[in-house]
Amino acid sequence: MRKIGKQEIEDIAVGAALLGTGGGGDPYIGKLMALQAIEEYGEITLLNVDEVPDDALIVPSAMMGAPTVLLEKVPSGEEMFSAFQNLESYLGKKIYATMPIEAGGLNSMIPLALAAKLGLPVVDVDGMGRAFPELQMVTFYLDGISATPMVLADEKGNNSVLSTINNLWTERIARAATIEMGGSVMTAIYPMTGKNLKDSGIRNILQLEEELGKAIRLAKEINADPVKEALKCAKGFELFRGKVTDINRKTESGFAKGIATFEGINEYKGETLEVRFQNEHLLAQTNQRLLCVTPDLIAVLDAETGLPITTEGIRYGARCVVVGIPCHPKWRTEKGIETVGPKYFGYDVDYIPVEELVKKGVTL
Amino acid sequence: MRKIGKQEIEDIAVGAALLGTGGGGDPYIGKLMALQAIEEYGEITLLNVDEVPDDALIVPSAMMGAPTVLLEKVPSGEEMFSAFQNLESYLGKKIYATMPIEAGGLNSMIPLALAAKLGLPVVDVDGMGRAFPELQMVTFYLDGISATPMVLADEKGNNSVLSTINNLWTERIARAATIEMGGSVMTAIYPMTGKNLKDSGIRNILQLEEELGKAIRLAKEINADPVKEALKCAKGFELFRGKVTDINRKTESGFAKGIATFEGINEYKGETLEVRFQNEHLLAQTNQRLLCVTPDLIAVLDAETGLPITTEGIRYGARCVVVGIPCHPKWRTEKGIETVGPKYFGYDVDYIPVEELVKKGVTL
Repeated sequence: MRKIGKQEIEDIAVGAALLGTGGGGDPYIGKLMALQAIEEYGEITLLNVDEVPDDALIVPSAMMGAPTVLLEKVPSGEEMFSAFQNLESYLGKKIYATMPIEAGGLNSMIPLALAAKLGLPVVDVDGMGRAFPELQMVTFYLDGISATPMVLADEKGNNSVLSTINNLWTERIARAATIEMGGSVMTAIYPMTGKNLKDSGIRNILQLEEELGKAIRLAKEINADPVKEALKCAKGFELFRGKVTDINRKTESGFAKGIATFEGINEYKGETLEVRFQNEHLLAQTNQRLLCVTPDLIAVLDAETGLPITTEGIRYGARCVVVGIPCHPKWRTEKGIETVGPKYFGYDVDYIPVEELVKKGVTL
Repeated sequence: MRKIGKQEIEDIAVGAALLGTGGGGDPYIGKLMALQAIEEYGEITLLNVDEVPDDALIVPSAMMGAPTVLLEKVPSGEEMFSAFQNLESYLGKKIYATMPIEAGGLNSMIPLALAAKLGLPVVDVDGMGRAFPELQMVTFYLDGISATPMVLADEKGNNSVLSTINNLWTERIARAATIEMGGSVMTAIYPMTGKNLKDSGIRNILQLEEELGKAIRLAKEINADPVKEALKCAKGFELFRGKVTDINRKTESGFAKGIATFEGINEYKGETLEVRFQNEHLLAQTNQRLLCVTPDLIAVLDAETGLPITTEGIRYGARCVVVGIPCHPKWRTEKGIETVGPKYFGYDVDYIPVEELVKKGVTL
């Protein structure tokens, strides 16, 4: 158990945006929400997974929908509060702690802000070790834990308690409701026990986020390249350096979908990189080479500052480093690949771990 | 208080389909569900509105969605049961009785079938005095009663408890969820008190349905025209007699929408009638005359048997009588017309009561 204050929030926000691989929400809004909550209610208690009793009720809190929409439809803060109250009353049990469902600029921060407000601890764990666009894309799904009862709540005051026969139906019905509720909503989802968490969660994610943010922040002081410092910390690989020459982005079926194109600089001169995304970056390839593919992480960093850039933050002309990071081993199982691999998203390539792609330089 | 047995079900099914003005679900499936429930659980208790205590919790039960879909996606019966259980546990109060939300082949029967199964009484009242396609289109909405908390449940086992800031949001979010859940679902909606019911409900609707069904059934025995007998009972008007020459029907945004075209016979020879519908018949006009428009009731009856035909039952070549019936006075108020008048459905005509249209023969 330890306390999370303002400096930790700053670092976590950066690291979470990096592991958010372009999605998971805007880090600036997320950070402001968490800082404001600490200002108002004091520091947040962070628990290690092993500190949670086996029978405790743990409920992740998250934004669902297109992050592009959320930029213009800022949460009121009240919707998450009412979602938790609703779920407690539906389940007839007190919630012991909250946690992030994924890494991401916003979705790592919402549980922290909510925890401060409710006086609950946050558990240092998530269900992805990165961000993914659909709500069955969590290790809890791989381990047969139900996403429901889940609560969806919008900033107007509408809310819905959903119970479904499986998590694919949760995704379908919740997505339709989210779109109708304006494109982004707050959710309380995957209510589970401490035991579930110990079996199925990805541990110490907030700690990794904080270390990543710290590495990038402190690089300047030691005259180091912030990108290299981040890669050291995340055990990742530089895939490409380039300038954004095109960004094609649309909000479709409740997702921010598109392609970002980069023209190579330095040793990558002459090559063109395409990064495809659906809320998150999912596939990076040049005309010759496949560089990295989901479920491995693809992050776009500012070449100068090392700061991660979300899909909605990619701007024409920006100089970026595209990096690849191996995903959690749970995603590399058969069911993992089936759930979040390239074929699921409609990309006709096989999954090959990023460390092999980097070694072999696999050609297309 | 009285008991409803099999003969009453047969008659109510016919009268309800007539007042259902083409919508409200298939009368055959509805009747089977109710007869089966009586077979299994015994006769149903029907209460007069005045017999309900002011503070009792009354919950209407209904199908929501496109009736065309329901024909191929028959309810399991369990979904309504689980919807009621869910709502009781959400509200923390026992449900005293159920009731129909609207008249219609299916939606008049569902509360009867459910009541038999749950051992609850049914109240002889509804919120429309006819059928309408959207869920805010009830007298309860005119009187400011909330549609939520409402439960949606599908035959697969998915369900959702929805709470919204107003009934237009209920319609939007529930409709989106309904479409995603397969196009038709069972709902427990507009939970209200006995007092609400006394102030706002349309009374003795099941009694009227039964009388209508009985009038049509007994016409043969007295060698009378069943259509004329029905019109006498419903205080309605014959508008047109014709043969179906075209039926244009599609399922769009969760509704069965379309136009049925009739070529006049007998004294209507030479005229062509178009009936426009969105689940229910909403507008009847020839090239020369406006015959009847929502919220007044437009029913299509078989010229021979007098039996009502639903929009999905209209067949090429069928000889029909199209009849008009004045709606309940609550629909003729300013808010009533705004909620269910022709303009709401996108028809550029003013509402004129059917009895005036019949007298004047208003030309277009």
